[in-house]
Amino acid sequence: MQAYEIRDGFGLDELVCVERPQPEPGPGQVRVRVSAVSLNYRDLMMVRGEYNPRQPLPLVPCSDGVGTIEALGPGVQGLKEGDRVAGLFAQRWLDGPPTADALRSTLGGPIDGMLAQQVVLDAHGVAPVPEHLDDVEAATLPCAALTAWSALVTLGNLHAGDVVLVQGSGGVSTFALDFACMHGARVIATTGSAHKAQGLRQRGAWQVIDHRNVPQWGKAARVLTGGEGVDHVVEVGGVGTMAQSLRAVRPGGTISLIGVLAGGNADLSLTPALMTQVRIQGVFVGHRASFLAMGKAITQHGLRPMVDRTFSFGEARAAFEHVASGAHQGKVCIRLTE
Amino acid sequence: MQAYEIRDGFGLDELVCVERPQPEPGPGQVRVRVSAVSLNYRDLMMVRGEYNPRQPLPLVPCSDGVGTIEALGPGVQGLKEGDRVAGLFAQRWLDGPPTADALRSTLGGPIDGMLAQQVVLDAHGVAPVPEHLDDVEAATLPCAALTAWSALVTLGNLHAGDVVLVQGSGGVSTFALDFACMHGARVIATTGSAHKAQGLRQRGAWQVIDHRNVPQWGKAARVLTGGEGVDHVVEVGGVGTMAQSLRAVRPGGTISLIGVLAGGNADLSLTPALMTQVRIQGVFVGHRASFLAMGKAITQHGLRPMVDRTFSFGEARAAFEHVASGAHQGKVCIRLTE
Amino acid sequence: MQAYEIRDGFGLDELVCVERPQPEPGPGQVRVRVSAVSLNYRDLMMVRGEYNPRQPLPLVPCSDGVGTIEALGPGVQGLKEGDRVAGLFAQRWLDGPPTADALRSTLGGPIDGMLAQQVVLDAHGVAPVPEHLDDVEAATLPCAALTAWSALVTLGNLHAGDVVLVQGSGGVSTFALDFACMHGARVIATTGSAHKAQGLRQRGAWQVIDHRNVPQWGKAARVLTGGEGVDHVVEVGGVGTMAQSLRAVRPGGTISLIGVLAGGNADLSLTPALMTQVRIQGVFVGHRASFLAMGKAITQHGLRPMVDRTFSFGEARAAFEHVASGAHQGKVCIRLTE
Amino acid sequence: MQAYEIRDGFGLDELVCVERPQPEPGPGQVRVRVSAVSLNYRDLMMVRGEYNPRQPLPLVPCSDGVGTIEALGPGVQGLKEGDRVAGLFAQRWLDGPPTADALRSTLGGPIDGMLAQQVVLDAHGVAPVPEHLDDVEAATLPCAALTAWSALVTLGNLHAGDVVLVQGSGGVSTFALDFACMHGARVIATTGSAHKAQGLRQRGAWQVIDHRNVPQWGKAARVLTGGEGVDHVVEVGGVGTMAQSLRAVRPGGTISLIGVLAGGNADLSLTPALMTQVRIQGVFVGHRASFLAMGKAITQHGLRPMVDRTFSFGEARAAFEHVASGAHQGKVCIRLTE
Repeated sequence: MQAYEIRDGFGLDELVCVERPQPEPGPGQVRVRVSAVSLNYRDLMMVRGEYNPRQPLPLVPCSDGVGTIEALGPGVQGLKEGDRVAGLFAQRWLDGPPTADALRSTLGGPIDGMLAQQVVLDAHGVAPVPEHLDDVEAATLPCAALTAWSALVTLGNLHAGDVVLVQGSGGVSTFALDFACMHGARVIATTGSAHKAQGLRQRGAWQVIDHRNVPQWGKAARVLTGGEGVDHVVEVGGVGTMAQSLRAVRPGGTISLIGVLAGGNADLSLTPALMTQVRIQGVFVGHRASFLAMGKAITQHGLRPMVDRTFSFGEARAAFEHVASGAHQGKVCIRLTE
Repeated sequence: MQAYEIRDGFGLDELVCVERPQPEPGPGQVRVRVSAVSLNYRDLMMVRGEYNPRQPLPLVPCSDGVGTIEALGPGVQGLKEGDRVAGLFAQRWLDGPPTADALRSTLGGPIDGMLAQQVVLDAHGVAPVPEHLDDVEAATLPCAALTAWSALVTLGNLHAGDVVLVQGSGGVSTFALDFACMHGARVIATTGSAHKAQGLRQRGAWQVIDHRNVPQWGKAARVLTGGEGVDHVVEVGGVGTMAQSLRAVRPGGTISLIGVLAGGNADLSLTPALMTQVRIQGVFVGHRASFLAMGKAITQHGLRPMVDRTFSFGEARAAFEHVASGAHQGKVCIRLTE
Repeated sequence: MQAYEIRDGFGLDELVCVERPQPEPGPGQVRVRVSAVSLNYRDLMMVRGEYNPRQPLPLVPCSDGVGTIEALGPGVQGLKEGDRVAGLFAQRWLDGPPTADALRSTLGGPIDGMLAQQVVLDAHGVAPVPEHLDDVEAATLPCAALTAWSALVTLGNLHAGDVVLVQGSGGVSTFALDFACMHGARVIATTGSAHKAQGLRQRGAWQVIDHRNVPQWGKAARVLTGGEGVDHVVEVGGVGTMAQSLRAVRPGGTISLIGVLAGGNADLSLTPALMTQVRIQGVFVGHRASFLAMGKAITQHGLRPMVDRTFSFGEARAAFEHVASGAHQGKVCIRLTE
Repeated sequence: MQAYEIRDGFGLDELVCVERPQPEPGPGQVRVRVSAVSLNYRDLMMVRGEYNPRQPLPLVPCSDGVGTIEALGPGVQGLKEGDRVAGLFAQRWLDGPPTADALRSTLGGPIDGMLAQQVVLDAHGVAPVPEHLDDVEAATLPCAALTAWSALVTLGNLHAGDVVLVQGSGGVSTFALDFACMHGARVIATTGSAHKAQGLRQRGAWQVIDHRNVPQWGKAARVLTGGEGVDHVVEVGGVGTMAQSLRAVRPGGTISLIGVLAGGNADLSLTPALMTQVRIQGVFVGHRASFLAMGKAITQHGLRPMVDRTFSFGEARAAFEHVASGAHQGKVCIRLTE
């Protein structure tokens, strides 16, 4: 079977398609025939060596993928051949707060990921996906959607009447917009593109702020709430956005720190957080129980993830380059099967 | 009656004792004859103009004080003359998350504080104090003790078996040590003084790390927990300590951001917080309901706050200078009555 | 001004309209010109002496009413003449868990209620109502709507994808249906009337079970969830329904015990609750902070309460009789002004 | 190897010691050489056929046991031969709310239990025990101790200053007393024996009420709290005690419904629960994550469970009869090895 590897070093040039022997599931494992993969910015950083420069190589990249179980190892219960499943981002994080082991059990690094025709995963490391989604759509859920769900629902206790601020049109932000609307909350979205602003409004945003024209968008968001501040900020923008997020959020509100984009040192004062009792909650994707709860909600609402563009397996490099361009609105995906 | 005012400008030189007319309680208010005050670093910053340079003057400083009700305004229920009460730090924060109004209702700025022989406060803005404490001891509770309680109990869900890291021997840190022990948790304390280390151990610290010898004390704390990390960090040290706190805390753990000491911009990366799902919780003292719950626990355990030194009303400036020296271990207090 | 009193004894025959002097607001109080009242089954029980046979008389009944502030007592802040407000069910319950005092501070018994042209209330005991509602609609919120909100949101942590079971078409059940839909949850409703079943479906119920045909409706609800059980039961039916509710609810789920209808002794086994770790949560209407949060959500969604019928002030007795008939679907109201 | 079975029917007479072949661990499983077992009232009910009359036979009874891993099946990670472990009560409940599958995964019925010289368990179904405990002491933890921990800590949010009411001197009640004291809470215990009252006081009870003299012990407990009511009742007494528990508990407080003793129908009114917003929380032992957290706390505090008497493997029937007698104070145990 074929798989992509980051082989001899980091960088898109090192991403090569190789022939590997068919993997066999050990005790408690399953083999999945992968049908679709979605890309996250994390995957691009991983390929480039920016996410973890000490990651041993070769590595099969990509945390997010969906496929069909085609073989069961000894002792597997509750799954059968033919089941359609996603790989879970954190293979050994089932519920509750994360352990160090759970945090190290992530696909696409350090564990080989989903950009392969066949993968072997622990039975606890796969989960069913909503039936109304095709494979490509379902492949968008493991990282970006679950991050948004964990931030707003599992950790964020979102409720109707709340106001949520999301930044831009990336995968996490778009899912956060969807989930906030699903819970009867209002969404203020920021963007730097008139085109994307239109898309955000169509998807349900109550207000869109163009941060090119309104660099003090945190203050603007606060004004939109009548001066109270927003209940929840989904902070994905990294350096420079936190100061505005702290201006936007209400006393006692929550800022969810999301994903690797927020990295980098910042000349940052957290004093406003303590003066208004704000909670800054790190969110590292999420656990299996949240994934299942999210799946129920997505099924019930018939939610369809926003897919920007789907590439073929042979076009994997082009798919990564499309992510790198930042031009996408919605998820960038790869289809492995016809 | 006499009161101290920050009168014509900021600075200890501007702190003057003045004669003021006896204040009369309006509807829903009480007049308290103040018997003891305790000082916080915030009070010193307020006098110096460092806390809020736009604070209108004159201002009576000091958030923390205890006294006896000597007059009731119209419509007051549930209180009577002779009741011993503390002023609550946030006069209009009764329970639940803070409102903007609650955050602005703090004694010692913007509202006139307790460094006066008589003060008039809202009936909801005072609360009884544990009977076994003398007035000076009781005067230490409104700001420092309540901050520690809010951090660990109200917001922190502290439990037996947890490990808590406290920094130094300041008021909040000492109360956090006390409350952690009270809940059956273990405490790792940092200090830069062998003498204070001794005091911390006597008060119940499980381990003390001298940060002069161990600049990587965050890593050292983690090692003490067998590599897992501490459950809770009470972060009071401000610039430079956060990086160590992020190293000390376990995945899914909590860092309580406390008080004005943590101010100032910092060249800080929050990436570790999100990679391990850490919660950074701003703590702005706390509400009336927490004060009452804390009082029950202090009473039950016969806890006595650590008082470093008590000054007379006439020595108020010396008391502030003692706070400024940083030489104290425990609270610095002022007694107004014989 | 005129007011209804339960005067010399209990029973609808003792409900008389009397002339009372205009009440004057004391310190911290306001006088409200009442424009609309809504009735709850509790109010009927109060009149009949079934709610609290030891209630001292005379008593002005009715916990729920809306009106306009027409006079302020000394010391009132944050309110002004002309503000439209509701009286809060529990006058002295502002936030957090209830105190015994808060539980005793309820309108319509033991405190004189809203079925009067003018009432005097504590300033903290009134709150603004959503602007898009007329007075009659707004008058439905203090008891029934807040009970449903407290059950599902404040105490129940409702989320999208959850399944909620409501019983019948009473006020609490209808608001619970509304709030569940608002949060993206699915609702299974029980009823004993084909006509009401239709109304429940139109209002958003996912499934309606006619308990006349399906006495084992708890089991039927479980089947509808694929055997898992519902996440939340809003239990209003009292004796006999709890056993079915325990069959309907999923392991780890919640049953909200609501209101006085659930009274009466029952031959009841709670063993199923402990064998599946179910939480049975008593809900006593709710606090001011929940009322304000609910108001934001109602405003945002433009929710309009279901009003069954509105009577004039002179027809108060007929209004109570209509409640007693059980024929209503939605709230029964009384309009005091033209 | 030898094991006890409930073989051909229910009843202590049917409990027989049989020779079974040595079980071999399958994928993801381990074989444990059992060294000690503790008995719960549930185990007695299981033998008698009172717990689940439809339980298929034969069944090896007893949920609680400790031993040493002596063989690993394929694919087991994180465990090794020689590790001392307890079997977890619910073999497939790792964290979070229980699933139906988790609730069915309990040892000693429906799954073969620990009263055997060798048992095979899932690797996730065993967990380390505190080092300072001998095997007999450690064997008391899986059911009774974890139930108390789940009730007060995992689900009960116990804190210093709280008052907890426990009933009698059974295993759950004694551990609840221990854990409450560990968290700085006060304990009121009820008993019907002067001798046991003495034991409860020695173990840390603040107050002991003899329910033979004080049948209205719920009211008495309330009086002891100054009329407020206790924060938490650990309700194990079953029929007849709930009414007193509802009198004892404060508004907004919690009653933990524990174990099979609470079974049986009761002529019970839950009205007081809703009128004071009490939470009645079913507690079904608990999950793996709680077991680990409890173990940390027990280790830190050097807590030693109260063992009433230890029988030899050959005396298993006498051990069950001792449980049936109700004369014990503390746990009844069986030692399988020298």
